[in-house]
Amino acid sequence: MQVQLTSPLDMHLHFRSGDMLKTVAPLSSKSFAGGLIMPNTTPPITTKEVLLEYKQEILDATNGDNFTPYMTLFFKDDYSYDFLKSVKDEILAIKLYPAGITTNSEGGVSSLSIDNLRTTLEAMSELEIPLCIHGESNGFVMDREAEFIPIYKQLATAFPKLKIIMEHITTKASADAVLEFDNLYATITLHHLYITLDDVAGGMLQPHLFCKPIAKRPEDREALLNLALNANEKVMFGSDSAPHPRSAKEAPGCAAGVFTAPIALQLLTQLFAKHNKLENLQAFVSDNAQKIYGLKPIEKTITLEQKEFAIPAKYKDVVPFMANQKIEWRIV
Amino acid sequence: MQVQLTSPLDMHLHFRSGDMLKTVAPLSSKSFAGGLIMPNTTPPITTKEVLLEYKQEILDATNGDNFTPYMTLFFKDDYSYDFLKSVKDEILAIKLYPAGITTNSEGGVSSLSIDNLRTTLEAMSELEIPLCIHGESNGFVMDREAEFIPIYKQLATAFPKLKIIMEHITTKASADAVLEFDNLYATITLHHLYITLDDVAGGMLQPHLFCKPIAKRPEDREALLNLALNANEKVMFGSDSAPHPRSAKEAPGCAAGVFTAPIALQLLTQLFAKHNKLENLQAFVSDNAQKIYGLKPIEKTITLEQKEFAIPAKYKDVVPFMANQKIEWRIV
Repeated sequence: MQVQLTSPLDMHLHFRSGDMLKTVAPLSSKSFAGGLIMPNTTPPITTKEVLLEYKQEILDATNGDNFTPYMTLFFKDDYSYDFLKSVKDEILAIKLYPAGITTNSEGGVSSLSIDNLRTTLEAMSELEIPLCIHGESNGFVMDREAEFIPIYKQLATAFPKLKIIMEHITTKASADAVLEFDNLYATITLHHLYITLDDVAGGMLQPHLFCKPIAKRPEDREALLNLALNANEKVMFGSDSAPHPRSAKEAPGCAAGVFTAPIALQLLTQLFAKHNKLENLQAFVSDNAQKIYGLKPIEKTITLEQKEFAIPAKYKDVVPFMANQKIEWRIV
Repeated sequence: MQVQLTSPLDMHLHFRSGDMLKTVAPLSSKSFAGGLIMPNTTPPITTKEVLLEYKQEILDATNGDNFTPYMTLFFKDDYSYDFLKSVKDEILAIKLYPAGITTNSEGGVSSLSIDNLRTTLEAMSELEIPLCIHGESNGFVMDREAEFIPIYKQLATAFPKLKIIMEHITTKASADAVLEFDNLYATITLHHLYITLDDVAGGMLQPHLFCKPIAKRPEDREALLNLALNANEKVMFGSDSAPHPRSAKEAPGCAAGVFTAPIALQLLTQLFAKHNKLENLQAFVSDNAQKIYGLKPIEKTITLEQKEFAIPAKYKDVVPFMANQKIEWRIV
């Protein structure tokens, strides 16, 4: 049995930079026609010059593959209208991180009040630049995403023409909230469709499954599956594939992030096939994102076949999700 | 400032065996007058012969210190009355593990129905042998302890003369349940008075804080603090100090257990002092256990003084709770 996907897109993707980028970018470009590149590099992407350099670094690393890096800026509350206008054609979105909430987010926003964000968000709204948000509070780890929902609602109400993407949602509360406002959308990762906190910390502790937001409860995963498997038009695939060197994952103080890029399409196909929802996979991994962002990706067909595939133990120094496990689908 | 504790007791303690026992047993005997020694060694303690050998191993390792190892058997549903009678004088309690629920519990009980447990529990009740339980279901990691509470209540009702100790409680639900039945009691660990899931997985992932039951929510810790700091007579200190070699903690598939024995009294004193509850510390770390178990421990005075103490990075190959951190109290 085979499945053909047209121009699959990964709408939430970390490439890092330097050697890590050289390792992971070609793995994404092998599977996908394009991806939304997160700007939380070190330092973060906040100027046009750095943005263009970073884009070139990605193009160089994926040379020969047909892959479009959709670039993002790291949200600052003092971006001017003129600056955003000057950079608009080079970016697809701007990503907002609350300060200190995840990897390389120290320079993020420390006050999320509407007043503090108004200037930049009004400019974005007028220029039709979507806003992507890592929506977590500083509260208790299992409550952070739910506690952030009122902020999503305030923003969606205050800026009705601004498209707001709730990134990597993990809870039933978010799955409900995204349906409430016309201008709210969401990405869902691969790993949050597969795992709950039980997989991270219910048996032995599994650092390679530790991420932010942390995987939640079974009923939360069910709510995400319900949106994804039915390809609800408010959601799209974004892997949040986040590579760290093995040494940073397998030590006390383990970094947050799950590396899924090279096996994402295979495991999505396995999941949708298992639930008899293969007919919705194309929309979840490409068509929905095209509509939400108004994209016309390059034409690229990825064919998967139902044949056993053993996920490698490592890609260079990066351990992938479900390393060493045998799965049922592979890319032809 | 000084605090004197008379015959402190640690009523839930893992010594393991062999070299590990030689490393950790003297650290407990330095601080405590006695401790309840858990039977989940490899293999578990299920015969009188092995029990006496294990007791001798502990006495040899703590030679020169005044420390009483209160021994336990690993619960089996086919212990006969005659066997239990023959071993009664050598044990203080019997510890029940649901099968597979934590370290070395594979041989635990697979059916917790009253009918299945009746023979052994009736004999224990008649012989006045207390029952200690690791009370977790096989459910979602954050719900396991709460899901086990109906079983505690069934047992407490069916065997009203049997003293049942809810080991290492971590939730408000358990803190409430222990007060509901005259024959229910509980131990509370040091680490569950200090940490929540936020400390384990809210920032970076911290394997040395990973244990079973996993640390829960802030309101759960508050409920435990309320019982412990007020030295509620239904609760007593049990560290659940659980040493693992560093290599087993700092790798994927990290073993469950927090090693607290050598710094438990210091950190309890710091905690009770911070909350202006030092007058209740003696009851929590000794007097309550004496009443619950009907113990008369050896006389041993431990003096602590308010003076900075740096917790070592390791004790041989075992990393303690709060390694390398400076605390305010030390043993004189």
